[in-house]
Amino acid sequence: MSSNTGDTGRGQRLYKKARTLIPGGTQLLSKRPEMFLPEQWPAYYSRAKGAEVWDLDGRRYLDTTHFGVGACVLGFADEDVDQAVLGAIQSGTMSTLNAPEEVELAELLIELHPWADMARFARCGGEVMAIAVRIARAATGRDKVAFCGYHGWQDWYLAANLATDALGNHLLSGLEPAGVPRGLANTMFPFMYNDIEQFRRVVETHGKELAAIVMEPCRAEGPAPGFLEEIRETASRLGAVLIFDEVTTGFRVLTGGIHRKFGVDPDLAAFAKGMGNGYPMAAVIGKRAVMEAAQSTFISSTYWTERVGPVAALATIRKHRDKNVAEHLIQVGRTVKAGWKRAAEQTGLTLHIDGIDPLAHFDIQCEHKAAVVTLFIQSMLDRGFLASAQLYASYAHQPAHLEQYLGAVTESFDVVARALEEGTVEKLLRGPVKHSGFQRLA
Amino acid sequence: MSSNTGDTGRGQRLYKKARTLIPGGTQLLSKRPEMFLPEQWPAYYSRAKGAEVWDLDGRRYLDTTHFGVGACVLGFADEDVDQAVLGAIQSGTMSTLNAPEEVELAELLIELHPWADMARFARCGGEVMAIAVRIARAATGRDKVAFCGYHGWQDWYLAANLATDALGNHLLSGLEPAGVPRGLANTMFPFMYNDIEQFRRVVETHGKELAAIVMEPCRAEGPAPGFLEEIRETASRLGAVLIFDEVTTGFRVLTGGIHRKFGVDPDLAAFAKGMGNGYPMAAVIGKRAVMEAAQSTFISSTYWTERVGPVAALATIRKHRDKNVAEHLIQVGRTVKAGWKRAAEQTGLTLHIDGIDPLAHFDIQCEHKAAVVTLFIQSMLDRGFLASAQLYASYAHQPAHLEQYLGAVTESFDVVARALEEGTVEKLLRGPVKHSGFQRLA
Ligand SMILES: Cc1ncc(COP(=O)(O)O)c(C=O)c1O
Ligand SMILES: Cc1ncc(COP(=O)(O)O)c(C=O)c1O
Repeated sequence: MSSNTGDTGRGQRLYKKARTLIPGGTQLLSKRPEMFLPEQWPAYYSRAKGAEVWDLDGRRYLDTTHFGVGACVLGFADEDVDQAVLGAIQSGTMSTLNAPEEVELAELLIELHPWADMARFARCGGEVMAIAVRIARAATGRDKVAFCGYHGWQDWYLAANLATDALGNHLLSGLEPAGVPRGLANTMFPFMYNDIEQFRRVVETHGKELAAIVMEPCRAEGPAPGFLEEIRETASRLGAVLIFDEVTTGFRVLTGGIHRKFGVDPDLAAFAKGMGNGYPMAAVIGKRAVMEAAQSTFISSTYWTERVGPVAALATIRKHRDKNVAEHLIQVGRTVKAGWKRAAEQTGLTLHIDGIDPLAHFDIQCEHKAAVVTLFIQSMLDRGFLASAQLYASYAHQPAHLEQYLGAVTESFDVVARALEEGTVEKLLRGPVKHSGFQRLA
Repeated sequence: MSSNTGDTGRGQRLYKKARTLIPGGTQLLSKRPEMFLPEQWPAYYSRAKGAEVWDLDGRRYLDTTHFGVGACVLGFADEDVDQAVLGAIQSGTMSTLNAPEEVELAELLIELHPWADMARFARCGGEVMAIAVRIARAATGRDKVAFCGYHGWQDWYLAANLATDALGNHLLSGLEPAGVPRGLANTMFPFMYNDIEQFRRVVETHGKELAAIVMEPCRAEGPAPGFLEEIRETASRLGAVLIFDEVTTGFRVLTGGIHRKFGVDPDLAAFAKGMGNGYPMAAVIGKRAVMEAAQSTFISSTYWTERVGPVAALATIRKHRDKNVAEHLIQVGRTVKAGWKRAAEQTGLTLHIDGIDPLAHFDIQCEHKAAVVTLFIQSMLDRGFLASAQLYASYAHQPAHLEQYLGAVTESFDVVARALEEGTVEKLLRGPVKHSGFQRLA
């Protein structure tokens, strides 16, 4: 692992240029260098393989952060998936005819989720969630949506913020829904995860006007007893479509949607990040009666017919199942959580740890959290790690990696603990404090 | 070329299954077998290379139809693009850091369109049009859109049909906008291409409430003198954002947007099909003052950060420019149009031919058009051609292909002409008549 002195050279220089050419600098908020380490984060990669990433200066890092925002459960550039994709490229990835692999993929997803009968595909998570909501609205003839959590960038979802700061607790506080048509006001009604009272209030007010209830089956914590069951029963009673957004939770603790662990089936479920190991692919699966409503509306796009996505998904999902990747992800998460706890105890920090094991997250209990986390990230980067206050587990994370990682975490927690004690957090930072949410770049 | 007897075997069997697993059977309306030759179209491909496609039974066809709906200007499985993509795969297509190629691509697109300053990327055409409209609405603080033509599956666009059958002339007649929230009614105002009077009426009624004017710079025909100029002036006067949708017209008659030929610059332009040669990629470029509005809203998606798309686009666009691919596409289109005309004269058919040369289209002047075109398609398939009433030119279409194609066209026009004379069109069809627009599958 290369030791890093804060001069991230070419990456930061390119990013400076990018900000003049690309509004916001990147295509994804979670990959903005400012979300990690402003002015110091390497920003761009030249190579990624397994759990390692090389920046534009050839510096090597171990990736112990959100790992491509959770898009690579098998690790970067997985040989088996790439081999399958190379085959698809050799035989042509686009034609006037359709790719037979999409039918195979529909069958596989339905086999993994026996409650589902049909599938439609897209290439992005936000996009496939918009499809799911379109289908639910078409199936019910209603417009309103009760929701919990984050579901992408599209109008139907951001409309939640037209009236109040409804997304403050779900996406990012203070997000103005600029550019979202005002006619969508009063279509989106939030409830907090595990707050059944709030859910009931939404249902009391909007009841049979709800087209859909949209949520992740599980968030930082699992469902309280009866929570998902009551939502399921309510949806059925109201004739609303229950949509589980498995874009992030899918393929973490089992091969398929995490809802299978909870024994509650939705009417539609959407997948994206877990399923293509980095190649654009997304799916919505569902019960026939609901899915057939897709035929009463127009849902159609050219690139949804290319072959790389389905081929990558078939290879990813089969390897996931054959190698019991979920078990590995859970083990990595447990090891990391235990290691964080131990390191905190050793260094005198107080942590709050949450997230399902494969999507582990910690919160340092202190003042000026953003500055403290920035110092942690800087210290980890100095030691050759891309790190943040979360670790998304991948199949490429091996015990030796975790040992190195937890060693560096202990050292960095120590740096942080001493800085907190001595009041030198800001002084030790070689650049600005990280951003914590949505923030306009100057 | 294999001669085909109408038994398309495995493809049709798989498609039968697909219809039970995928609502609507395919991911794109234009790739539904029923849009060509119900019960006979090969439906799926095993291999595609250059201008040739192999079906699931190993039968080989020359592709002389919409050629992947226009997504492969260089031809299927182009070696140079695929080589670049293989390089990207080898070095990893996803990581926690960003792909530097997206900055390079932004620069290249801006170099090709000197009026533009910034770019954002997505992976699908409908998706990037939704981004363009979001940006326009955010930049103006207005919601209404004047539009002409087809712009994808998303809510903002289909909302046009909430009030009347406004899309009848632009997309597909009779399309119900099921699942599109009713709050979007009265946001979309259509005008027909080259109908400046209709455009003026929209402007008179909605004037300074218009966020955007969305259109293809050119459709089947080019712009009437002054048409685009008046729209440009009107947009500037109203403070509305002029968006040129170049998803289909881009990279056909020159390297970049067709608007450069007409000397009228928009505020935003969107690209997709022409730019990735089959790999999912889409871009919106625009003037800084408008594009910066992207920062006042939330436009962010995980797969927009992967590396295949930008790498494929860089390779496609550079080859397009270096080899003067546009000139080839124009020549192919001219040869085909002249050949259609000659074949029609020889066989006694009357054709109406339109479309810019690389996107050539004919219309047989007769009754029962759908049945007649179905017979043409059947006759061409029997002769080893994927064909329809249009030909999208590709760099892979070589003179020898066109000679074979035009020979088969002459034979098939002759079949059609005699059937029309003898009143045997329906009798000669070995399956149902093709669908002509949006139609629910049984
Ligand atoms: C639960 C959930 N839904 C939807 C999305 C949007 O997916 P994408 O980033 O692929 O558009 C995300 C992405 O973070 C997500 O976590
Ligand atoms: C002019 C135009 N705009 C938008 C689209 C939608 O693009 P996509 O099919 O990639 O979603 C198309 C596709 O046919 C198009 O021709």
